[in-house]
Amino acid sequence: MPETYRTSIGVSTLDSIRLLGKDLPHELMGEVSFSDLAFWLVALRRPTQGESRMFGAVLVALADHGLTPTVLAARLTLTSAPESIQGAMAAGILGGGSRFLGVVEDAARFLAEGLRADEPHAEVARALVQRHPRIPGLGHPVHKDGDPRTPVIYALAEETGTLGPHLRLLRAVAAAHSELTGRKLPINGAGSCGAALADLGFDPGIIRGFALVARAAGLLGQIAEEIRDPIGLRLYDAVDRHAQYVDPR
Amino acid sequence: MPETYRTSIGVSTLDSIRLLGKDLPHELMGEVSFSDLAFWLVALRRPTQGESRMFGAVLVALADHGLTPTVLAARLTLTSAPESIQGAMAAGILGGGSRFLGVVEDAARFLAEGLRADEPHAEVARALVQRHPRIPGLGHPVHKDGDPRTPVIYALAEETGTLGPHLRLLRAVAAAHSELTGRKLPINGAGSCGAALADLGFDPGIIRGFALVARAAGLLGQIAEEIRDPIGLRLYDAVDRHAQYVDPR
Amino acid sequence: MPETYRTSIGVSTLDSIRLLGKDLPHELMGEVSFSDLAFWLVALRRPTQGESRMFGAVLVALADHGLTPTVLAARLTLTSAPESIQGAMAAGILGGGSRFLGVVEDAARFLAEGLRADEPHAEVARALVQRHPRIPGLGHPVHKDGDPRTPVIYALAEETGTLGPHLRLLRAVAAAHSELTGRKLPINGAGSCGAALADLGFDPGIIRGFALVARAAGLLGQIAEEIRDPIGLRLYDAVDRHAQYVDPR
Amino acid sequence: MPETYRTSIGVSTLDSIRLLGKDLPHELMGEVSFSDLAFWLVALRRPTQGESRMFGAVLVALADHGLTPTVLAARLTLTSAPESIQGAMAAGILGGGSRFLGVVEDAARFLAEGLRADEPHAEVARALVQRHPRIPGLGHPVHKDGDPRTPVIYALAEETGTLGPHLRLLRAVAAAHSELTGRKLPINGAGSCGAALADLGFDPGIIRGFALVARAAGLLGQIAEEIRDPIGLRLYDAVDRHAQYVDPR
Repeated sequence: MPETYRTSIGVSTLDSIRLLGKDLPHELMGEVSFSDLAFWLVALRRPTQGESRMFGAVLVALADHGLTPTVLAARLTLTSAPESIQGAMAAGILGGGSRFLGVVEDAARFLAEGLRADEPHAEVARALVQRHPRIPGLGHPVHKDGDPRTPVIYALAEETGTLGPHLRLLRAVAAAHSELTGRKLPINGAGSCGAALADLGFDPGIIRGFALVARAAGLLGQIAEEIRDPIGLRLYDAVDRHAQYVDPR
Repeated sequence: MPETYRTSIGVSTLDSIRLLGKDLPHELMGEVSFSDLAFWLVALRRPTQGESRMFGAVLVALADHGLTPTVLAARLTLTSAPESIQGAMAAGILGGGSRFLGVVEDAARFLAEGLRADEPHAEVARALVQRHPRIPGLGHPVHKDGDPRTPVIYALAEETGTLGPHLRLLRAVAAAHSELTGRKLPINGAGSCGAALADLGFDPGIIRGFALVARAAGLLGQIAEEIRDPIGLRLYDAVDRHAQYVDPR
Repeated sequence: MPETYRTSIGVSTLDSIRLLGKDLPHELMGEVSFSDLAFWLVALRRPTQGESRMFGAVLVALADHGLTPTVLAARLTLTSAPESIQGAMAAGILGGGSRFLGVVEDAARFLAEGLRADEPHAEVARALVQRHPRIPGLGHPVHKDGDPRTPVIYALAEETGTLGPHLRLLRAVAAAHSELTGRKLPINGAGSCGAALADLGFDPGIIRGFALVARAAGLLGQIAEEIRDPIGLRLYDAVDRHAQYVDPR
Repeated sequence: MPETYRTSIGVSTLDSIRLLGKDLPHELMGEVSFSDLAFWLVALRRPTQGESRMFGAVLVALADHGLTPTVLAARLTLTSAPESIQGAMAAGILGGGSRFLGVVEDAARFLAEGLRADEPHAEVARALVQRHPRIPGLGHPVHKDGDPRTPVIYALAEETGTLGPHLRLLRAVAAAHSELTGRKLPINGAGSCGAALADLGFDPGIIRGFALVARAAGLLGQIAEEIRDPIGLRLYDAVDRHAQYVDPR
């Protein structure tokens, strides 16, 4: 009996390309937005109109955040290997780790664990804050008085009917943190986006992936700019001029 | 005088995040689709309604094509490093090279070069076919009688008012090829998508990047499926059982 | 005051290239083996003769292990992007994660934690086995009766005078595991190599990196073979022929 | 008839691990240097003593060149994803493209093409210089008066009996270039290393791979330094503070 490889995503034959059980050219191209397709590919169902609007807003929120370390890694890789856009983009994607983009996943996981207890959010929130010295999704190195993306995420969730337990618990956690510690740490964009994706039904284990898809678009913008108006060599030069050899002993 | 790094993409301050000169939370989130943002990040202008529809259809067309080598590379990377979704996605992105996704760029470049000559498309097409033994964008290993995406790309281009010189020349090239060689090689999806992106105003040098952004969504679907219903270890096992040592001498 | 970037590795001037405080062309090229240089670059000191022999044997042990998932990922990436050897090698490197190569690091970390307690190895080993349901470095899916690399690692460590607490504790852990569980799980190659690298003085946090350097050589051999005698397209074809669409509902 | 996958590299059974037709633990570990194994994995034969010495010197020459763009890409990737050493190393490997490391391959290819003509080196060299506006392997942005690695490569080649047609032709090309253009462009390290690898019998198509293996060791040193004494966040900060938004219109 031959090995078979099951898939629910795409299959092709001589005269058809099927994706997610649909005829790609006739039922998807021009019929579904790219953002909805990204949702569908993971959820294996088409988003509702409200979900579609919310999900698209989250991808837009996560697409770019300026000349971050991962953007610089992509641009410097293009400097060395200008013939390989895929290499530059892959280098940028590789920075989607624990320190920056990973917070989207960490916040979702943290909240999902809190929600396992079937108790009021306020109580769960207080318990979480007491147990965890550092709460993923709270605080931001730049936006110290509040991440401007967060209120918009909450307003859109309300408006689209997708405000769910993760976003609610996150708000309760921020309040409990403020109350118990006396410090005011705002909910950051990664935290509210992670909670919003969890409220859309996604498992924490895949949520970082949406941040990577969003970032792929941002990285392409940055790569296009690096082609037009490069900074890679100047950046290298700035480091090289200020490199200082230190004897390790 | 300090070094400055110019950018037209994103900048943040204490209380604002700006992207493409707009206020990200208030002017972009919930106001622009993710697909339009991807266009905007590279073109540095928002697409028109027709361009938006066409561009979205191209991204949808390019998102996935089943268990291709690049998808298998991503899935096998997840098998070895399940803790790093970004590594699996980067491995899949790295397969966006000359043999498969690169055709999108190659076709756009080939057509753009043909269009430099200010002559009727039919004549340019005949000259191109006579000069080039292999035309990027013609022929497909599976869809031998015609790639089902191609007529939909042309219909959408017509409908959205974005049918331009690249798509027109590609059609003339296919006709000239058939006439001059007697063989019928259909316009493949990569070719028509590359021509469509070029007609949307994008430079051939960045066009492969849109295929990568589209593919990022497809790869995420494949990665989610690999988590749910893995094939990586079975694939490894199938190879390992049939590995045969050959003495190189 | 300008920003400076300290480094103890390499600096160049108009007429010199210095590496690790040495004149690269005159004091290193032809004077130090590549393997010793790899040790030196991390330890910031040249290995002794015994350390050099042990370290080289560990790199040789870790270089290749056949057509593993990470090798297949590299070969399939070359199939899609044959113009980019660096992309294929990077894809292979990305598989150096928790499931396979990561065991080298996990074993070193596990043993290093055990060694914090200043107690006899036999007692530490029993406590570790009782606390941990799964011991990194014990057991192998193929080499069920013993990984043939392990006795050679121990013999070389003895011979080169580098047998230290990590290798000793690992042996005690294997004995304790056998005694307490009644099952006989052999010390695998990743485990003994990880312990050997820890005994050479390396921190667990960098040890996986040596497995990656070793694997880079193995991957290059595999990439060269893929160029000479490709299997990527046949592998894709084998999967594609046996792909079976499954409705997700 | 089942699909089989031929390989001349590695195969494992219950109680053996074979590599290159040898018993890995007993015939290779402790018996062959890592550098010789890297040669063997690609050449499928063990190097002679002279080849071993030359090849090792080339790997040492190529291992590191300071805080280059590819090193910065690796360090910045570690900044964002400190949990994934393989991601940082892969990002660094991805910079092994046309602009820097690729020169090793380009020089080898350029010389190999010149050597197809069965004519005296001096004549071939003059013809090459006349045909090519830019000669890969000549000139260096920093080492303007001569790359200090080059004379050592030539001396070692002489000493080890591996000085062959590629290194000889490269010297003739440099002389012809100087004579015909009046400018003095020194042979750079990438050029002499590429020629040396070609003289060791390697095909230009795989030569970049050896630079990547060498660079893997250098990158690990840089990654270890980034863990000990990080510059990634300061580098990001230096760019971020000097980022300047430019309206694209």
